[in-house]
Amino acid sequence: MASETVTPRFGANYVPSAGWFYSWLDYDGDAVRRDFADLAGMGLDHVRVFPVWPWIQPNRAIIREQAIANLLDTIDAAAEHGLTVAVDLIQGHLSSFDFLPSWVLTWHKSSLFEGSAVRDGLTAYVDAVARAVATKPNVFAITLGNEVNNLWPDSSTTPETSAAWAQELLTTLKKAAPDVLALHSVFDDAWYKGDHPFHPVDAVDLGDLTTVHSWVFNGVSRVDGPLGPATLTHADYLIELARATALEHDRLVWLQEIGVPGPDIPVDLQAEFTRRTVETVLPNPALYGVTWWSSHDIDRRLLDFPDREYDLGLFTVDHQRKPAAQALADVIAEVRANGVMQQEATTLTAPINLRTEPGRRAEVAPGSEFHLQWVEARGNGPVRIALP
Amino acid sequence: MASETVTPRFGANYVPSAGWFYSWLDYDGDAVRRDFADLAGMGLDHVRVFPVWPWIQPNRAIIREQAIANLLDTIDAAAEHGLTVAVDLIQGHLSSFDFLPSWVLTWHKSSLFEGSAVRDGLTAYVDAVARAVATKPNVFAITLGNEVNNLWPDSSTTPETSAAWAQELLTTLKKAAPDVLALHSVFDDAWYKGDHPFHPVDAVDLGDLTTVHSWVFNGVSRVDGPLGPATLTHADYLIELARATALEHDRLVWLQEIGVPGPDIPVDLQAEFTRRTVETVLPNPALYGVTWWSSHDIDRRLLDFPDREYDLGLFTVDHQRKPAAQALADVIAEVRANGVMQQEATTLTAPINLRTEPGRRAEVAPGSEFHLQWVEARGNGPVRIALP
Repeated sequence: MASETVTPRFGANYVPSAGWFYSWLDYDGDAVRRDFADLAGMGLDHVRVFPVWPWIQPNRAIIREQAIANLLDTIDAAAEHGLTVAVDLIQGHLSSFDFLPSWVLTWHKSSLFEGSAVRDGLTAYVDAVARAVATKPNVFAITLGNEVNNLWPDSSTTPETSAAWAQELLTTLKKAAPDVLALHSVFDDAWYKGDHPFHPVDAVDLGDLTTVHSWVFNGVSRVDGPLGPATLTHADYLIELARATALEHDRLVWLQEIGVPGPDIPVDLQAEFTRRTVETVLPNPALYGVTWWSSHDIDRRLLDFPDREYDLGLFTVDHQRKPAAQALADVIAEVRANGVMQQEATTLTAPINLRTEPGRRAEVAPGSEFHLQWVEARGNGPVRIALP
Repeated sequence: MASETVTPRFGANYVPSAGWFYSWLDYDGDAVRRDFADLAGMGLDHVRVFPVWPWIQPNRAIIREQAIANLLDTIDAAAEHGLTVAVDLIQGHLSSFDFLPSWVLTWHKSSLFEGSAVRDGLTAYVDAVARAVATKPNVFAITLGNEVNNLWPDSSTTPETSAAWAQELLTTLKKAAPDVLALHSVFDDAWYKGDHPFHPVDAVDLGDLTTVHSWVFNGVSRVDGPLGPATLTHADYLIELARATALEHDRLVWLQEIGVPGPDIPVDLQAEFTRRTVETVLPNPALYGVTWWSSHDIDRRLLDFPDREYDLGLFTVDHQRKPAAQALADVIAEVRANGVMQQEATTLTAPINLRTEPGRRAEVAPGSEFHLQWVEARGNGPVRIALP
């Protein structure tokens, strides 16, 4: 039995080709439009964009009007290219760099999660930025911030605090922007690391849908990468874990980040990895969309990035379409032409309950007995996960 | 015997009236000119200006052209008002806030003093900014950064490392800007705290003259403030300590910061404190100049500053001249009309050698037996300090 699913959304995490996110400091709407033309040209329907928090709120009492205006212009630029927009707010964490304002550092050191003044400041920030961007009809989602759990351990927290922090800010966000998706976003340590102070339940209980970020350098590429079954199915595995952990089993899961990091995925295999990993997730009825990380490479003249970050773009810094982009464009065209056929699934029961036993998360991590069992079963088609 | 000295320079540490240093992010040359008109109007001859490091060098490889252009416009604005300019580079530390780029934080955490990549970055920054501002004929001094020793303990260091760090950057600075004063600047912990990893010898051996910052909240106002002799003579005491510690006894000392912090100096006594403390230092032949902290108050709508920081301005945020400003303007007019008469001095020998026994610095700190002895003697006229 197979039935047709809704075509998922396809997009890119927007990394400006000139000057990375530093370009916010010298905003150039024409350059943004040139980048968005690249993305629209390969058939994408949306971009996820990342303002930089301390440059918008350099003092707890300041929300810079010009910075908001630049963000709104970026959203308009997307609209001009037929792209809808997801906005992330608290950056916060981007490609190994944490952007933090002076009012939470050194003499003013305070945990972003635990400090009450900081939480007041973040509430004001989330409210102001969400309210502003929600005036634009092509904004469809607002995420609290990119992988906010990477702000720990520099900012201390506990599981209870992390959950309350996200819940409170999502409430603020929903009030400010009631008509768009309000979302939480975490790096997959929340799914796999036993002592991590952000729990799987937060990812699946908070916000209007679940977001997952699938990065094969998390250990899975060491299992059998670059084109082994564990590596190619990791995104689908994470979606299934998220789906199994949600109380509502029809809760959608957005594959909000996936990419081809070297050296795990060598350049000559990136097109194939892209095609096969996307084709693997497409039949999953929980899939909301696929958003590639990232739109554009990082200029190698910029220093201090982890080496793999430089080359993650669908496009080079001079706007050349790379092999992964072509592969993704081909898949998109194929899906739009022929749809996606749902496939019959089997079910495996996890050894632990991710809702109630987060301390045992390592038992479902890449390379765990359960994970390998799931990967083997996945060779015969979709495998749902049941919690015990 | 009394002889006339050279008239010292008078200036202000420039704190923008609108938006504090955050205003660099939304640079408004007209607002700067309005502020400088206030300062020129009270007879000042210079301003000390503070670019914010991470906004100029957000990536180790980027020096933002627009940020440099804004800094140059500020220097031009000063020239238009007959003001010369001292530029501080590594901010770094400003009024309790430390501005640090993402490339030295969290995942990239590195001591500004000890990290070799950070030192490379700072060298590039110092070179580029110094080279740019030195093209302006009204720039007379460049300081490495405002009270860089306040960047410790967040950035670890040792006395040897601190000295080598400053020496290396000063060499870079001197090469980039050979015709202006190249200076080092430290908060007075370097003079008074036994275990502080910046030593008095650095202040007096490095750079083209010595800078001191006299803040009576350092303990001296508890001795006899607000108008007691210890409080009123603290600036002169610090100048004498600096003069005594220098190898060259004619090395000039710039009183680069002094102000009227509340609650130590109550509002109704600020004019008198200003007049008397400035009149006390004027006859000191080592005095290069007096630079008030600060030009303008901080808008109370801005949050998280220590309370005393808001009201340190010579002018309010709406350009009203405050009592300390009037007192300073009166002293300046008096000095320009009548000159300054040098006074005969006595000499006291310090109990420790600040060059060789920095671990014993507390023995000359405010409230120490030696300090009180000096203050008593100072009641009869200038008191030089000799090291044993």
